[in-house]
Amino acid sequence: MEEITYEDPTVAEGIAAIRAGSPFVYGLTNYVAANLSANVLLAVGAGPAIGAAADFPTVFPAGAGAVWINTAALISNPAEPVSTAARAAHAAGTRWVLDPVAVGAGATEYDAFVASLLEYSPTVIRGNASELTALAGGDSTGKGVETTLSSEDAVGAAEDLARRTGAVVAVSGPTDYLTDGTRTVAVPGGDVRLTQVTGAGCSLGALIAGALAVVPDALTATAVAHAAYAVAAERAGARTTGTGSFAVALLDELSLLAA
Amino acid sequence: MEEITYEDPTVAEGIAAIRAGSPFVYGLTNYVAANLSANVLLAVGAGPAIGAAADFPTVFPAGAGAVWINTAALISNPAEPVSTAARAAHAAGTRWVLDPVAVGAGATEYDAFVASLLEYSPTVIRGNASELTALAGGDSTGKGVETTLSSEDAVGAAEDLARRTGAVVAVSGPTDYLTDGTRTVAVPGGDVRLTQVTGAGCSLGALIAGALAVVPDALTATAVAHAAYAVAAERAGARTTGTGSFAVALLDELSLLAA
Amino acid sequence: MEEITYEDPTVAEGIAAIRAGSPFVYGLTNYVAANLSANVLLAVGAGPAIGAAADFPTVFPAGAGAVWINTAALISNPAEPVSTAARAAHAAGTRWVLDPVAVGAGATEYDAFVASLLEYSPTVIRGNASELTALAGGDSTGKGVETTLSSEDAVGAAEDLARRTGAVVAVSGPTDYLTDGTRTVAVPGGDVRLTQVTGAGCSLGALIAGALAVVPDALTATAVAHAAYAVAAERAGARTTGTGSFAVALLDELSLLAA
Repeated sequence: MEEITYEDPTVAEGIAAIRAGSPFVYGLTNYVAANLSANVLLAVGAGPAIGAAADFPTVFPAGAGAVWINTAALISNPAEPVSTAARAAHAAGTRWVLDPVAVGAGATEYDAFVASLLEYSPTVIRGNASELTALAGGDSTGKGVETTLSSEDAVGAAEDLARRTGAVVAVSGPTDYLTDGTRTVAVPGGDVRLTQVTGAGCSLGALIAGALAVVPDALTATAVAHAAYAVAAERAGARTTGTGSFAVALLDELSLLAA
Repeated sequence: MEEITYEDPTVAEGIAAIRAGSPFVYGLTNYVAANLSANVLLAVGAGPAIGAAADFPTVFPAGAGAVWINTAALISNPAEPVSTAARAAHAAGTRWVLDPVAVGAGATEYDAFVASLLEYSPTVIRGNASELTALAGGDSTGKGVETTLSSEDAVGAAEDLARRTGAVVAVSGPTDYLTDGTRTVAVPGGDVRLTQVTGAGCSLGALIAGALAVVPDALTATAVAHAAYAVAAERAGARTTGTGSFAVALLDELSLLAA
Repeated sequence: MEEITYEDPTVAEGIAAIRAGSPFVYGLTNYVAANLSANVLLAVGAGPAIGAAADFPTVFPAGAGAVWINTAALISNPAEPVSTAARAAHAAGTRWVLDPVAVGAGATEYDAFVASLLEYSPTVIRGNASELTALAGGDSTGKGVETTLSSEDAVGAAEDLARRTGAVVAVSGPTDYLTDGTRTVAVPGGDVRLTQVTGAGCSLGALIAGALAVVPDALTATAVAHAAYAVAAERAGARTTGTGSFAVALLDELSLLAA
């Protein structure tokens, strides 16, 4: 399978394009992940706005370079503005990322809401193996927001989901797998501590949106974000011990990429 | 009075049990404290999910190893899902921690809500001296979320509250006091900067829930969390200057305990 | 134009007064900025409480030393408690800071809400050049929460807004400009990374509230906060690379000022 890493010139070019374009990226996420997500986007030069204040969900998707929606936004918002933002992005032709965090973990009302957003044709769907397997309709054994499946286990389900929805589907794990249903690429690397810092997955969704705002091909944009995140995590992991300083160093390394 | 510190083998064993069991811990807290609380649980190997999205408060307490409810969750949620989660935990027999932050600070509607949760028999109630004295019905002089009483002053009120509610009651301060109404233990240590980092108290509540998920005796579980937190804070304090790097080092040290 | 820096003894005296008085400062902000804002206030010895839980917006403004309202609070709250808190602060004679984040960025319903708060006579209004120009009724070209005007460009609009509202108006930028409509002072310094850390602007609003609680003259209090923030940012910037460690060091440096 084709591998993409930060050594691929496309990746640094993609990050440089975010810095050059400084795209406005609008997101709906929750209060656990919001701070890190915004800081990840700021670290690569994007301009994030997060949240469902007043008419933001109606107005901002049309003006944004891209949108990301982490459905754990329902922690902080009613469902309606989240649907509205997805619908507004779809209507405006703004590309958007769906992060269906904790789908399949046993909350059936929540799961039904997540599935309903597929109607608005997300450009990219990202998650861990359990989440994406659940969303694809398979048997997952999600335990809260953690995964009990390996990313390899979910490649088939991801390809099915990509073909069914038209989205690029990205499975995070020790190796990440990205697919548009026809072409599947692997992004190796990263650091296990990415699973020990809250919001690290959601922040990758935000970074994908940043790349979608400036990189035309959706699969390439998704690979740019994953490979940049992986190399930043590796560099952060190499110089820190413990999860607190790892998260700080991750932001540092992202802010130094293509700077 | 009996003292428990990290030197007591029970404590490292308790943390090791969290790492081994990787319990799913469900929490309702607010947007100020949520990020640190989740990262504290992840640092010791637990799997946190936070928030009142859709049917989470109805569904997740039954499946969780333990639950923690910081009533400042009312900052982010209506009161109803918070009551629902407490009721669901009680109904399912899932042990849960009540953190009545800022109770007694002058907001009478909020205080009444906090008191109403006692009906659902929290397993542990934690807070500072002002909060617990207020909850016990005594005269406190809470000033926002800060305390103006010493932890020693609150031991009597804590013991009364424990006997009345059946909960273990834990008073945080320079020395922490933990009581089930019959047996009272002291946990010395920590660092004054724990009071200068927002969410540090709430995160201790989350860690107590993590311990309750794997340590059978509730007073012992509460002591495990307090003693682990105290030693991590001491180690973090010894190698940092300033409150920002202290918070980062606290997470680092927790992630290195029994690892 | 008169310049104020941390070399001015008034500034360290103001920070020392916050530490000595430990004022209770109540804030309404959003989940992206709340954590850093609370930590900034704790770093200088103030006691923050944040959020619209239950009757907080009705009760806390009267008891607080000062209040700050970041209107991106609408991300986390309905509009009503935000208006209530502004009205309660005004009614109680408690000084308060308005931070109209993202006003003028295209969300007209939100912009109208922000403008409606001027009725409750904020003591200080702070923002970037785009936001303050928009609020003053001029032509801004805000792009989300980022600014495309320089702080110099906005001095005239800020002076107009100050004269019209009776508030001190503070424009953040490479050099900050503070005006009561008659007297205008410049606060140089800071670090460009303040624009690359989410919540850094909002946290300055919180710090202004902390100073307003203890420094009688409103323009002086506003200058204390700006000059302290600028020197902490410069010191943090001098010893860090990357945005993650800069934010941590900013808190460290604030916690060491006048300590």
